[in-house]
Amino acid sequence: MASPAYDLVIRNGRLATASDDFVADIGIRNGVISALADRLDAGREEIDATGKLVLPGGVDSHCHIEQLSAGGLLNADTFESATVSAAVGGTTTVIPFAAQHRGNRLRTVVEDYARLAAQGAVVDYTFHLIVTETDDVTLQTDLPALAGEGHGSIKVFMTYDLLKVDDSALLDVLASARETGSLVCVHAENHGMIAWMSQRLVDDGKTAPKFHAVSHPRAAEVEAIHRLILASELLDQPVMVFHVSTAEGADLIRSARQRGVKVYGETCPQYLFLTADDLDKPGLEGAKWMCSPPPRTRRDQEALWQALGDGALQVISSDHAPYRFDETGKLSAGASPTFKEIANGLPGLQWRMPLLFDAMISRGPLGLQKFVELTATAPAKIYNLHPKKGTLAIGSDADLVIWDPEREMMLSDSLVQDRTGYTPYVGRTVRGWPIATIRRGDVIVRDGQCMATPGSGVFLPRTGGAAAAPSGRKTSDAELAARFGAAGV
Amino acid sequence: MASPAYDLVIRNGRLATASDDFVADIGIRNGVISALADRLDAGREEIDATGKLVLPGGVDSHCHIEQLSAGGLLNADTFESATVSAAVGGTTTVIPFAAQHRGNRLRTVVEDYARLAAQGAVVDYTFHLIVTETDDVTLQTDLPALAGEGHGSIKVFMTYDLLKVDDSALLDVLASARETGSLVCVHAENHGMIAWMSQRLVDDGKTAPKFHAVSHPRAAEVEAIHRLILASELLDQPVMVFHVSTAEGADLIRSARQRGVKVYGETCPQYLFLTADDLDKPGLEGAKWMCSPPPRTRRDQEALWQALGDGALQVISSDHAPYRFDETGKLSAGASPTFKEIANGLPGLQWRMPLLFDAMISRGPLGLQKFVELTATAPAKIYNLHPKKGTLAIGSDADLVIWDPEREMMLSDSLVQDRTGYTPYVGRTVRGWPIATIRRGDVIVRDGQCMATPGSGVFLPRTGGAAAAPSGRKTSDAELAARFGAAGV
Amino acid sequence: MASPAYDLVIRNGRLATASDDFVADIGIRNGVISALADRLDAGREEIDATGKLVLPGGVDSHCHIEQLSAGGLLNADTFESATVSAAVGGTTTVIPFAAQHRGNRLRTVVEDYARLAAQGAVVDYTFHLIVTETDDVTLQTDLPALAGEGHGSIKVFMTYDLLKVDDSALLDVLASARETGSLVCVHAENHGMIAWMSQRLVDDGKTAPKFHAVSHPRAAEVEAIHRLILASELLDQPVMVFHVSTAEGADLIRSARQRGVKVYGETCPQYLFLTADDLDKPGLEGAKWMCSPPPRTRRDQEALWQALGDGALQVISSDHAPYRFDETGKLSAGASPTFKEIANGLPGLQWRMPLLFDAMISRGPLGLQKFVELTATAPAKIYNLHPKKGTLAIGSDADLVIWDPEREMMLSDSLVQDRTGYTPYVGRTVRGWPIATIRRGDVIVRDGQCMATPGSGVFLPRTGGAAAAPSGRKTSDAELAARFGAAGV
Amino acid sequence: MASPAYDLVIRNGRLATASDDFVADIGIRNGVISALADRLDAGREEIDATGKLVLPGGVDSHCHIEQLSAGGLLNADTFESATVSAAVGGTTTVIPFAAQHRGNRLRTVVEDYARLAAQGAVVDYTFHLIVTETDDVTLQTDLPALAGEGHGSIKVFMTYDLLKVDDSALLDVLASARETGSLVCVHAENHGMIAWMSQRLVDDGKTAPKFHAVSHPRAAEVEAIHRLILASELLDQPVMVFHVSTAEGADLIRSARQRGVKVYGETCPQYLFLTADDLDKPGLEGAKWMCSPPPRTRRDQEALWQALGDGALQVISSDHAPYRFDETGKLSAGASPTFKEIANGLPGLQWRMPLLFDAMISRGPLGLQKFVELTATAPAKIYNLHPKKGTLAIGSDADLVIWDPEREMMLSDSLVQDRTGYTPYVGRTVRGWPIATIRRGDVIVRDGQCMATPGSGVFLPRTGGAAAAPSGRKTSDAELAARFGAAGV
Repeated sequence: MASPAYDLVIRNGRLATASDDFVADIGIRNGVISALADRLDAGREEIDATGKLVLPGGVDSHCHIEQLSAGGLLNADTFESATVSAAVGGTTTVIPFAAQHRGNRLRTVVEDYARLAAQGAVVDYTFHLIVTETDDVTLQTDLPALAGEGHGSIKVFMTYDLLKVDDSALLDVLASARETGSLVCVHAENHGMIAWMSQRLVDDGKTAPKFHAVSHPRAAEVEAIHRLILASELLDQPVMVFHVSTAEGADLIRSARQRGVKVYGETCPQYLFLTADDLDKPGLEGAKWMCSPPPRTRRDQEALWQALGDGALQVISSDHAPYRFDETGKLSAGASPTFKEIANGLPGLQWRMPLLFDAMISRGPLGLQKFVELTATAPAKIYNLHPKKGTLAIGSDADLVIWDPEREMMLSDSLVQDRTGYTPYVGRTVRGWPIATIRRGDVIVRDGQCMATPGSGVFLPRTGGAAAAPSGRKTSDAELAARFGAAGV
Repeated sequence: MASPAYDLVIRNGRLATASDDFVADIGIRNGVISALADRLDAGREEIDATGKLVLPGGVDSHCHIEQLSAGGLLNADTFESATVSAAVGGTTTVIPFAAQHRGNRLRTVVEDYARLAAQGAVVDYTFHLIVTETDDVTLQTDLPALAGEGHGSIKVFMTYDLLKVDDSALLDVLASARETGSLVCVHAENHGMIAWMSQRLVDDGKTAPKFHAVSHPRAAEVEAIHRLILASELLDQPVMVFHVSTAEGADLIRSARQRGVKVYGETCPQYLFLTADDLDKPGLEGAKWMCSPPPRTRRDQEALWQALGDGALQVISSDHAPYRFDETGKLSAGASPTFKEIANGLPGLQWRMPLLFDAMISRGPLGLQKFVELTATAPAKIYNLHPKKGTLAIGSDADLVIWDPEREMMLSDSLVQDRTGYTPYVGRTVRGWPIATIRRGDVIVRDGQCMATPGSGVFLPRTGGAAAAPSGRKTSDAELAARFGAAGV
Repeated sequence: MASPAYDLVIRNGRLATASDDFVADIGIRNGVISALADRLDAGREEIDATGKLVLPGGVDSHCHIEQLSAGGLLNADTFESATVSAAVGGTTTVIPFAAQHRGNRLRTVVEDYARLAAQGAVVDYTFHLIVTETDDVTLQTDLPALAGEGHGSIKVFMTYDLLKVDDSALLDVLASARETGSLVCVHAENHGMIAWMSQRLVDDGKTAPKFHAVSHPRAAEVEAIHRLILASELLDQPVMVFHVSTAEGADLIRSARQRGVKVYGETCPQYLFLTADDLDKPGLEGAKWMCSPPPRTRRDQEALWQALGDGALQVISSDHAPYRFDETGKLSAGASPTFKEIANGLPGLQWRMPLLFDAMISRGPLGLQKFVELTATAPAKIYNLHPKKGTLAIGSDADLVIWDPEREMMLSDSLVQDRTGYTPYVGRTVRGWPIATIRRGDVIVRDGQCMATPGSGVFLPRTGGAAAAPSGRKTSDAELAARFGAAGV
Repeated sequence: MASPAYDLVIRNGRLATASDDFVADIGIRNGVISALADRLDAGREEIDATGKLVLPGGVDSHCHIEQLSAGGLLNADTFESATVSAAVGGTTTVIPFAAQHRGNRLRTVVEDYARLAAQGAVVDYTFHLIVTETDDVTLQTDLPALAGEGHGSIKVFMTYDLLKVDDSALLDVLASARETGSLVCVHAENHGMIAWMSQRLVDDGKTAPKFHAVSHPRAAEVEAIHRLILASELLDQPVMVFHVSTAEGADLIRSARQRGVKVYGETCPQYLFLTADDLDKPGLEGAKWMCSPPPRTRRDQEALWQALGDGALQVISSDHAPYRFDETGKLSAGASPTFKEIANGLPGLQWRMPLLFDAMISRGPLGLQKFVELTATAPAKIYNLHPKKGTLAIGSDADLVIWDPEREMMLSDSLVQDRTGYTPYVGRTVRGWPIATIRRGDVIVRDGQCMATPGSGVFLPRTGGAAAAPSGRKTSDAELAARFGAAGV
């Protein structure tokens, strides 16, 4: 008897891409999608997905794993724990950071993170390279070489004493990225405003976690996004604005895109589901909801949803930055820390997809195609992982999540798979739940249990950072010169 | 020996949807796409598409067929000639009009057009219902009944003496459509401005075709679009702005969408490739390029491309309105007509897809996915024909066009398949050419020759006009009342 | 002994113009300001204004006197009663209407109003010519001749069945005004929207006064202002938008001015101090607050103040339209009128200046210079009455109001000097009160008592309507042609 | 015989304020305007101004006198030479700087400049305090004390290595100014962008003066203005943006003002009359036109005029920064300096008023009132010198300029009264020329000859920096806290 045509057949599920929505069987062979059809021959294994949704696995393009915080604290997760939580939450590709700290050689940093990931990751991954040094070795030697090896995106910070690059260094990084075709992702907040506000608050005895939100005024984000956009426009270099939290920030990105600036924008669940009021809890409890930028207001939530709907923002990532609510994490500075001494960041790899499924598909007007686009296809395209990742197509990796659209689940700390021990979304009930996660054809999660071997995730090399630049053409140097509004160069 | 699994297999083509792009075989059975796979079993028939693109057939959602002009002249095409030209040009679905003239019963009009189409059409079709009477029979009896029979979209004119509805009647139509869930498409130009300008020009002896463009000032379009948007917003009723020709018009639609108004926008090749200067030809020759609104300027072209890129406009249709350049058509008013006596309209069913393939894929930055979206998927979704039409998905109609991406063709009158006898794009060379058109699994065009039987196209009933409303939720009457900014209703 | 140098000297008052603020004596001779000085010689009469403000008399550039309503009802005031109420309220110049009704000859209309005014007016006046007929006699004969006789401004209505001009006729009026250099003032509301809403409300039994506000949706105003601006821009003809009531309307005017459109905007106290909620009274009481457009919301009030502050709006007039709250006025249609049967309009000549003094000087941030500008200088300039009216300067008419800045007054029906018998601002307490009104050197009001002889006000001929056009240069016909974005004219 | 009533009577001139325009005699006593009248008694001295304009003397609120450049070079003028050139050019009040350099005590700096000015100035003056150190002595001790002594405005730089304050220090200065009620003026350009561009250009051998314009990209200005506006808004502290050169910069200020931010904007003749092309001269000649920001394009000129017209910008100053075109000035770095080694700045005290009279009154649409406002009244109000300075009113200083509106003059180096020896406007012919300058009643300039005694100008103490804040109310701390969009402070 002939061997089965497929290693795995998923039968009769409702499939969706960023464009389409149809019922079909999926045939998987050698880890890739081999066939989509109304009726396939038998597979070696079969899953009946009748009544279920079979969607592309999530691509979480912004998460911090086994990384030091801006304040020098190692975060709570290993590559294993973080990627297990991702897989359980319906995410099959992650983009954490290889984070240079001052004085470190970037190449060495990348090798270190690569080794950690290779040991622990259970889903596929690639890295953004955090650049804090803009010396010649970094800009002229390491970045071009690493770009050639598939490290196609860079991240810089406009704030944090130990991480930030100034405006001149930012232009150096953008110019370097322009040469290598990399995308530059940016934490855009004004450093001086935050430092000034924080000092005033602490001097005034306002040290509770809720004052963290006050210390990051919305103007700090708006200002930095505007500055970044002008720098991007000056050099015609694509940039991604990470974790947009304000209505005004989204507006700036929208209007820049409309005049042709190659700027992308991302937001995160914390800005769509939480507000600054969530930090206002008794004692230090509010620390669990501290992240940077902080959650804002309901009005901002609405504006961010609008921006996701109209394309001003293209990506929803988790910005997973895990710290336990104990002396190893949020409370490492002692019993009575000021908000400045508490690590910023929320866990999110596990929660992003269910929260968004509930908000967009079960309840919301944005719907199935937009869910797939924002959580999987768009990040895969922007970071050059598509069509291997982020969609259902012949030849794509069989990274799939099976969702039960009717299953309701109350989020609680007992569900937590990462090492923080808590979820910032505790007590919320969502409808729609991932019941199986398939990575390159292997079922690695069933009913919330991850069965993957640590290290079974693989590195995804990329070139040419921004695959889906709003306009594909790179402006010539002559055009750039003209843009400076000056006598001929 | 077993019968082949598929009626037709198209092998090894490069396939694209609005989201994806991959090489695969397509298996077709009973007129629908049965399988997409890296390697399919044999079909009864096979086509080798190696090195070719296999794309969804075009959906041309705005064309005039066997219809009287605003001036009472029958246009040049029959359903047969028009749909043959469509098929040859890579379009497999059309949405012409069932056009009520004053005094006619709408139901009768629809039956008349349905009969003509059933006799002649070689591609599938549905109708927009042109409403000029807003009496009770039309609004209370015919429109609801026809909506129930699958006529899910209405068109009204804001200009033309014999067609226009005034603002109060426009609200009547919008309110009726709100009840039936229909989409209202609108020719939005200010009637008074055009009438006033035309009279001034003719009084001044400025009667050549080029003055047609002057007689439709850009303000006339901008004004009417703004008025329409406010009417749409007032009643929370989705509308489609047909043939946007100006930068300002596109801007108004964009900003309305961003504040949540359910407005769609369409443009046409004549506004992307022609300018008002094209009307400035010796003698009456310019009449060939007369349409309403007229082509504008290069700056408008750029703004319209930007709007298509950023989602402010969602659809490119042809607005095919065919008249011969002779005494049966453009010159029917005699040897020396003024521009007011010349029928407006350009042929376009045959040219839309090749012009856009060339501009977007061969030369342009917008690319393959955006081409599929703008020419097929988006109109299919907006007019509720998706997923049956407008994409490549399991269960969708096998409406496919095979493109040779390298073939160059100079457009000329000798290629013309419609009955106008000329192409407004004469002399242009495009790269990328449709070499076969497949309608529900049947190859109906090969190498520019249509082999389909007249009447083999079928009617496509639709319900619920705007499938992809920018926001799916219908505002409640209470919310509407609040919106009027007044004491409680 | 030499005769005194001045007929009247006002000593030691605090004087203000739109630019300056200083203490001085004013010397008046022959009805004009002859001297401003730190110490003047004796006058025949003297007034000690120490501790008082001496400001230019108000110019109320929009009021209805002895005029038929849109519904055909004669309003409550005569020229005598209206101008007495103006004088008592601190206004020394009024611009009522000479109102053509359909079928009337404009010249005759003007003669009729001129005769009535000459008999009754106690302050100086000029007319806006309301045009409802756009036949050749009106446009070609009467308007040019009347403009030559000093009738330099026209008013048209975009709504009201018996008054409105359509878009083509509006362009006719604008073109005519362009020839004569007149300013065109416009009641800008969309007729169809109001008619449609009104019918729906009445059909639904919603007939109370408060539904008047619902029947004039804010979109009706926004739409018409936008349409008017485009018409003005098309012909490069200055226009004045009367009684702007919405934030969006003010925004449209602001942005039009910034791109060079010659558009002015006016608002009125009812839009700055009242809201639609004021119409929501038991029974028919709300009729007292019915005007068109209706008062809106607090948000609109704030936006209108902002617009006055930043120059988007330039004038505050009263739009005085007086009807008694009895069977001769608001209730003339019987005991149970629907809102459609109740005359629109509020009294205001007497209240405009004290309300604004209180809001701008006693309480507000806008201050003394802005008060003078908005209530006197700007209307005088825009309507070509400056420097004769609207300021304190050597040679200007000695139209002065002496204000006690500390005097508090509660507004009540017992103060009413016009014939309506009520004030819509009943119960409000204002600080700052006009204690004397001087018209061309004569004290005509002291302590609320008017002593002027009916008919002592004089007609003010004007030429060249818009003295202070945002840009003084008139666009050439060639430039206009180019603006149409078309082949050469 | 009685002594004459006035020290000086100017007869029959055409007078203008920012609001009005009239013919009158002016009577001056004890240096102030004592009377304005149609006919005054005799004065001790008399001037016949028939056919002439008598306008308020110019207030030039931004000029550098006896000051070190950003590069450490002393500029060419003394207080005597600078103020003589001002007086000859029709300016009677100047606001130069008391410029702290790093390490200097601010109080000492102020004393030094006060001494120099007291010795040399021939027109009245006050100072902006340039702050480069934000230590406690400056912020807590000197600034409050100096504000109490009448030093009501501060200037900071966002660029120049030796002068710039970073964002946190900028907030410190704004917070200090908020306490003392001072206005903060800012040179707003992004330091990093300029440094980066300059280095690139020099590295590339592009060192000619014309590259100075390239090295200050327009984005550098736009960015810094945006950042400054957000800082101003964050603390609700009024700021003045100096020397706006770009359309986008003016747009940002306009829209900020419209949302209530207390931001003012200034531009200068070099941005209204010159472009970057003026720097493109053979050899080093272009250095004569080098200033920062550089002149831009014709499009920017038009946008700046528009902004002056609609109130987005309120002031035109000279930014007089005088350097000779020789080894003592522009060429002090040797024979072949790069653009980085050439001092920035243009002379302008003498040219501002005639250039603007010609552009606004003789040729332009903005006219007489706007000329007076922009050059005299508005700066006097904003910097709290009004009504003593900047207008014609009873009690105001008799600072007057008599203009011959018909006199034409070609600007040339031979006219130069300052010590630069050249005029950047060489070769231009203007119509309208100042024929006499009167300072506090003394004729100090006649026919281009200054007769004033050095040191006869006096210091003008001021308190409460921004007299004419767009909104007078200071936001409370509680409101500020709410504005941060966070949990209660």
